[in-house]
Amino acid sequence: MKRANSKKSIKSTSKAIQRSRLVKRTPVDKKTIEDLVAANRILYAQSVLDGYGHVSARHDTIPDRFWLSQSMAPGLVTAGDILEFDLSGEPVDGQGRPTYSERFIHSEIYRRRPDVKAIVHSHSPAVIPFGVTSVPLKPIFHMSGFLGTGVPIFEIREIAGDTDMLVRNPGLGAALALCLGNISLPQVVYRAIYLEVNARLQSNAMRLGSINFLTSEEAKLAAAGNDMHVLRPWMLWKHEIAKKSSA
Amino acid sequence: MKRANSKKSIKSTSKAIQRSRLVKRTPVDKKTIEDLVAANRILYAQSVLDGYGHVSARHDTIPDRFWLSQSMAPGLVTAGDILEFDLSGEPVDGQGRPTYSERFIHSEIYRRRPDVKAIVHSHSPAVIPFGVTSVPLKPIFHMSGFLGTGVPIFEIREIAGDTDMLVRNPGLGAALALCLGNISLPQVVYRAIYLEVNARLQSNAMRLGSINFLTSEEAKLAAAGNDMHVLRPWMLWKHEIAKKSSA
Amino acid sequence: MKRANSKKSIKSTSKAIQRSRLVKRTPVDKKTIEDLVAANRILYAQSVLDGYGHVSARHDTIPDRFWLSQSMAPGLVTAGDILEFDLSGEPVDGQGRPTYSERFIHSEIYRRRPDVKAIVHSHSPAVIPFGVTSVPLKPIFHMSGFLGTGVPIFEIREIAGDTDMLVRNPGLGAALALCLGNISLPQVVYRAIYLEVNARLQSNAMRLGSINFLTSEEAKLAAAGNDMHVLRPWMLWKHEIAKKSSA
Amino acid sequence: MKRANSKKSIKSTSKAIQRSRLVKRTPVDKKTIEDLVAANRILYAQSVLDGYGHVSARHDTIPDRFWLSQSMAPGLVTAGDILEFDLSGEPVDGQGRPTYSERFIHSEIYRRRPDVKAIVHSHSPAVIPFGVTSVPLKPIFHMSGFLGTGVPIFEIREIAGDTDMLVRNPGLGAALALCLGNISLPQVVYRAIYLEVNARLQSNAMRLGSINFLTSEEAKLAAAGNDMHVLRPWMLWKHEIAKKSSA
Repeated sequence: MKRANSKKSIKSTSKAIQRSRLVKRTPVDKKTIEDLVAANRILYAQSVLDGYGHVSARHDTIPDRFWLSQSMAPGLVTAGDILEFDLSGEPVDGQGRPTYSERFIHSEIYRRRPDVKAIVHSHSPAVIPFGVTSVPLKPIFHMSGFLGTGVPIFEIREIAGDTDMLVRNPGLGAALALCLGNISLPQVVYRAIYLEVNARLQSNAMRLGSINFLTSEEAKLAAAGNDMHVLRPWMLWKHEIAKKSSA
Repeated sequence: MKRANSKKSIKSTSKAIQRSRLVKRTPVDKKTIEDLVAANRILYAQSVLDGYGHVSARHDTIPDRFWLSQSMAPGLVTAGDILEFDLSGEPVDGQGRPTYSERFIHSEIYRRRPDVKAIVHSHSPAVIPFGVTSVPLKPIFHMSGFLGTGVPIFEIREIAGDTDMLVRNPGLGAALALCLGNISLPQVVYRAIYLEVNARLQSNAMRLGSINFLTSEEAKLAAAGNDMHVLRPWMLWKHEIAKKSSA
Repeated sequence: MKRANSKKSIKSTSKAIQRSRLVKRTPVDKKTIEDLVAANRILYAQSVLDGYGHVSARHDTIPDRFWLSQSMAPGLVTAGDILEFDLSGEPVDGQGRPTYSERFIHSEIYRRRPDVKAIVHSHSPAVIPFGVTSVPLKPIFHMSGFLGTGVPIFEIREIAGDTDMLVRNPGLGAALALCLGNISLPQVVYRAIYLEVNARLQSNAMRLGSINFLTSEEAKLAAAGNDMHVLRPWMLWKHEIAKKSSA
Repeated sequence: MKRANSKKSIKSTSKAIQRSRLVKRTPVDKKTIEDLVAANRILYAQSVLDGYGHVSARHDTIPDRFWLSQSMAPGLVTAGDILEFDLSGEPVDGQGRPTYSERFIHSEIYRRRPDVKAIVHSHSPAVIPFGVTSVPLKPIFHMSGFLGTGVPIFEIREIAGDTDMLVRNPGLGAALALCLGNISLPQVVYRAIYLEVNARLQSNAMRLGSINFLTSEEAKLAAAGNDMHVLRPWMLWKHEIAKKSSA
């Protein structure tokens, strides 16, 4: 991996190569990158991400490219940290900046699933207990109607036995990609947050007794409603992180 | 629905029509609208509302009109977002601004219940588990004495089978309206908050064993006390949101 | 009760009467009142009090007088809100300002217990579940060693049958006063906070299994330690509320 | 213990003695002390410490010296509060400033464990329930892989019967030192925080059913990963406390 101070030597050797290799950020890209930075910071502010986890968005015009921050805490991400990646999971012009070990979650899903526009990887605190026990997450209110179709489980032990639990190569990413559903950026942020909310409510409700979940028809109808209204909280969450930054 | 940019064309065609259709906000209205904005923001700050939910207040002098924000996150509501509605659930002069799908909760309750002065619709997090299990909410301390008369349940399945769970037409609103009790604006905010508090306490207390709830006589006496003192926390909560805004 | 605007008429009639009736605040009083204001705001910031509850401190030199705020949310109390009370539970010169219904908790305890220097009345959220079930609060770690001697219970039903649950007259205050222990102002704030902490920990630990509480000898030794170190967190908590005020 | 105002008399009597006794802070020390101050404030901001608890770091060049704040709330610690200690548990030049009763936790561990570089003592709220019941803490996700080797328990009753629970002399510190593992400063902060996170998740997951913990091999592999990435959240946490200070 080239070190950061080699940037000058690249610039001085060949401007032609530079032009073909550097990311040219169009106005459309700028909006996507802005939203991606917001998504990182919103998910941190909403306690879905902590110092770890990551969010990516597929390039608007080049389908085999996606945007993902260099390796750092999502709560600190700025536009200057966003790198362009290709489907091998490597940055197009990383300039030696560190990348997330688990970038293959993103590259392999984008590779196998052309319908996916954005991905969140988190250690969502209320969700983890459901990931390590056998209780399935189900939609407890209409805000998480999208859970009606079930939450797919990827069990890394089935693929690779004992590991450090990280999806740290394309093979593991490919195995994971077979599990997931399709999504845009405000949608993925909405779902990441309401997945966490549903998990918390479900856990609390289980203490009271048997839960009356949504039927699958109700979940389907509610999910269509969820998608129509994702911009309402998105405006609020963006406002909240803007306040935090200026405080 | 007219688009926002048609406002200019209305103004230029007929000022006479404009005068009869536009909301004339009196000093009394201004106070109510100010309180309504505060109610929205307090309930968000107190985590009773999140990006969703809404609060309304009946017009002080025209009983078949009420105030409700355009469709947006309650935590961002300002006086300029408050629209005047009639009992059909439509804004008097909406000027194309989006309205909440569930505005019929408000219009139908105001229609059928002349004693009701204000309404909150929320997805109060500690309350939802009680809504999806069979444990009834009961007054665990005197602050929620108002729960002594029980919490009415509206089950949408009984009226409309499988739905997206939203009260999105007058028929569903009418069915809901048959359930509820009467209330003013600081009272409804107090009750929304202490309903949440009671639910949290009750859920936590259930873990310890059998609960010694208020008797119905104690609840009745305590409820009268609740109503007498709603302005004490109202001043605090208003102060808190004012600090938030200037930070 | 005289109204606030009668202050001018008192001043103009008789300065002699005024001098004997008005509170003369000495430098010692000023320090106590400052600490009392801090105690109110700390307990609100630490979520032991919400919009309700109150804190008082006995007068430093006149044992049958005590300081208590006029009726308002503790989180908003300033030095100008502190009134001087006598043991009848009435303000010495209230000037029509509203008083807490439950001021008799304070007056009657100070009357019967000359060793008590300060009192907190709260609806401490993690403690309430223990008050409405039969699980006794016991010291789970050395920070709450003071619980080793048990937590006295005052059951209002035994004295007055069905009520609104408030200690709203001297008779009820007297019955309550028979239960309690002795305390200074930073001590009472420390205990109010660590009572809440212990309740939360105990409730959480009960989910894991049988708890290994402190023995009564350990509790006694730990309690002596608690008292010696109350100023350490007091400095932190005062710093925190000062930051809040200037933000 | 000499009082703070004796500093001037030392300076005026003998500069030679002063030079040999005073702490000379090198640039390396300055960085360590800066990190130690940050560690104190991060652990308070992250609710691992409250008004109590402490963090220390071994001297970079003099192995039988370590840095520890004078006795105060960790959330208020500044560079000027950090004292240099020797392995007897006494400050090299304390100038009468108060020291923590439990400084022997630090001195005895540094004495017996040359591999240890930093120590946190806390009353971590989600961890305490595990300390007072018989449920062992185990790694529930890869972030706390370091728990794979088990959490050693020090039971003070076995050494000293009934006490006030404090490690207030070298004998108790020595008994405790026999239990622990080796660690650097960002590592110890990471582990203190993720121990708390794991405890909370484990407690919540237990409510759902039988937990599928990491195997010991997975834990070992994950632990190596934890250590490699401790700087990622460290940058975030430092940023957060810096914001808090300037707000």
